[in-house]
Parts: sequence; C-alpha cells; structure tokens
Amino acid sequence: MRMRKKPNLIPRMERCAGVQIKNPAEYKGRWRSIMPEAENLSLELGCGKGRFTAGTARENPGTLFIAVEKVRDAMVVAMERVCGEELSNVRFIDMDAMNLREIFENGEVSRIYINFCDPWPGNKHAKRRLTAPGFLEIYRDILIPGGEIHFKTDNGPLFEYSLGAFSQNGFSLHEVTRDLHHDGPTGIMTDYEEKFFNQGMTINRCVARLEEGR
Amino acid sequence: MRMRKKPNLIPRMERCAGVQIKNPAEYKGRWRSIMPEAENLSLELGCGKGRFTAGTARENPGTLFIAVEKVRDAMVVAMERVCGEELSNVRFIDMDAMNLREIFENGEVSRIYINFCDPWPGNKHAKRRLTAPGFLEIYRDILIPGGEIHFKTDNGPLFEYSLGAFSQNGFSLHEVTRDLHHDGPTGIMTDYEEKFFNQGMTINRCVARLEEGR
Repeated sequence: MRMRKKPNLIPRMERCAGVQIKNPAEYKGRWRSIMPEAENLSLELGCGKGRFTAGTARENPGTLFIAVEKVRDAMVVAMERVCGEELSNVRFIDMDAMNLREIFENGEVSRIYINFCDPWPGNKHAKRRLTAPGFLEIYRDILIPGGEIHFKTDNGPLFEYSLGAFSQNGFSLHEVTRDLHHDGPTGIMTDYEEKFFNQGMTINRCVARLEEGR
Repeated sequence: MRMRKKPNLIPRMERCAGVQIKNPAEYKGRWRSIMPEAENLSLELGCGKGRFTAGTARENPGTLFIAVEKVRDAMVVAMERVCGEELSNVRFIDMDAMNLREIFENGEVSRIYINFCDPWPGNKHAKRRLTAPGFLEIYRDILIPGGEIHFKTDNGPLFEYSLGAFSQNGFSLHEVTRDLHHDGPTGIMTDYEEKFFNQGMTINRCVARLEEGR
C-alpha cells in the first residue's frame, strides 16, 4: 500500500489512544479482559484504513476485534474511523503478523481475517505471503479448534497458492469462490475491494477452517 | 478421448463378461452382495483403459470398485486388464454418469474417483462437466456422510471451477495441490497422467469431502 505521508501522525494517534494497545504482549492469554462479555475474538491482519474493520465490528457487536496493521499512516485513519463511530469492540495493534505468538495464547483467537494482503509474486519472497506455511503454523497455534481464516484477494496466483497452502497445512476449505460479487455486492468490502469491483475485476474468497484434532 | 475403433469389440467384451454388470439397476441398494466382505464401495467415473482402476483395486483388496465408462472401446481394454490380473474386486458398467441415481441407493458409495474428465470449456456446456452442481447433487445423494470425491485434472480452468463448485455445494476441500508430482510421482497414475507428467506438465488434485449433517 502506498499512501501519502500523514501529517501530525503522532498527535492524531494520541487523540484516539483509547482504541490502541501499545503493550499487546501484556494482554497475552487475557484479551477477553478488555471485553468480558465478548463471545468471540477476531483478528484482522492488515486492516489498512479500517473500512472492513469498522463495518464488520458494527455488524458483530458481541465480538472483540483486534486489528493489526504495520503501516501507521493507514492505521491512524482506521483508528479515527472507529473512534468517530464510537465502536467499543475494536482495538488496534501496530505490529507485524510474524510476532503474533508473542501476544496471543494458544487457542485464544476464534477467527482471522486476511484481506488483500501483499501477493509477494515470485518464489524468492513466497515466505512473506500471509498465507505461507510459516504463517499458517502460527495461525494454527493461536486459533481455537474449528477456528477460521476468512481470506479475500484480487490476485489469482496468490489465491491458487493459498488454497494449496491452507489444505496442505491442516485447514479444510469452504465457500471457495473466484467471483465473490458475481450476483451483486456481497459482504463488507474493503476500500480496495470496492475500487476493484467498480472496475469490473473479480474477487477471490475462501474460508479455511482449522481441522479438529490437530 | 479419441481412440481407434477396436475390432471384435463384442466378442472381446464377452470373453471378460464376468467383470461386466449389464443390468446395474438390479443391484441398486445391494451392490455389496457382489463382495460381502467389502469394507467400502468405490466408484470411478470414466475409467478409460483402466490403468488407475486396476492399480487402485490391487492396492485396496478390501474395497469393491465399480468402474463406469461410456466409451466401450476404452472399457474393453480396462476389462481385459482386470481379467488378466485376476482382480476379483472390480466390476464395469457401460453407462453415463447422469444416471447414477438409477443404480445406487442413497449413501451406498464411500468414494468417487474422477480422473481427467472432459473439461467442456466455455459456459455453454459447463453443465456437462462431471464437477458441475447438477452432478454434485447426484454424488451427494449416493455418497455416505463424510464420503469423498478424489479429483485429478491437468486442466487449470476446470480445476478452479471445480474447487468453487465443490465448496459451494456441500463439500469441504482437502489436499488441494496444483502440482501433485512436484516431489516425484505420487499415487497411481492414469495413462494420460503419465504422458502429461513425462511432458513436464503439472497435475491438479483435490479431495472433496461431503460435509456431515447435510
């Protein structure tokens, strides 16, 4: 994602400090303490400017959403959106997905959303894809049995790669589609997604479910 | 599949009459009577010349294999192969997959193999693909809960189409790979498959499992 550098980034983040978790490792194993009534804990990897985050949190008030984003210039927009809508079930973490094990206990997460992540084309950097086996190993640990990864991408080769990676690393596949919005807009879109959709591009989506007994 | 017309087709089939079922509808609901000790009943749709059929039957002596093929010039070769190897757990049916409900009771089949079926490119004939929703509905009926479809194809667009169709029609996906023989020959190959493999082409494979409770 390329974005203009946001002016006044730090003061803007400070004004929304209530929705940011600056010491996430301290919450490991006790994320529910933020929202004791939460039925589920969902994690979004790469929330960008937070349109999907806010929309999904609004539709699921009983779920606590932890949104991870390493690009702070994007995350501040997402934070402002969530603050503006006064959504109480979202928190933001400024970090890299590689370190998820440091902040989530085994089986602490019910669902992971990955939307339009960097496809990292070519073999050389395949390991950096958020659906690479190294990452799936991390997700397997932090997800509950039967926990799900909800994955969307416009990138065909990344989607193919990901279907293989999921199913060869302990996940079964569900709701696989190469054209999510074939019968009209379906589900909550990200900003990218709406742009692609309006350009007539097709969106790939699947749900990967952690197989029980692993 | 294009084949040279086989001379003496009828007498050749007659010589292997013991492995052909000419009145399959009469076996509906009682296929196990052919082999009462069978633990499973597997069905192969489009067995061609039967190399996969014979190899798989040899490796699974406790399973009864019903091989369906509508091209009799191919089926006779498969029958001769099975007779020659004296495999007692294979029977052949000369019919179209469209009529499977007439010969199998609900929940009578444990597994269905579909190898290198006609891709029927283009939308006009999509319904004829053996992984089209109309066929999947039939398979859902005749399969046991948790029953599996083992699917292989060299055709990328057919594979994509099939992944979507499976997962949107009551099947979860497992063992999805775009390059089955990446680490060397894996499993029993069909004649086509070996030819493609030797030409360096990649083979797609997946297992679609009927989700319980449907």
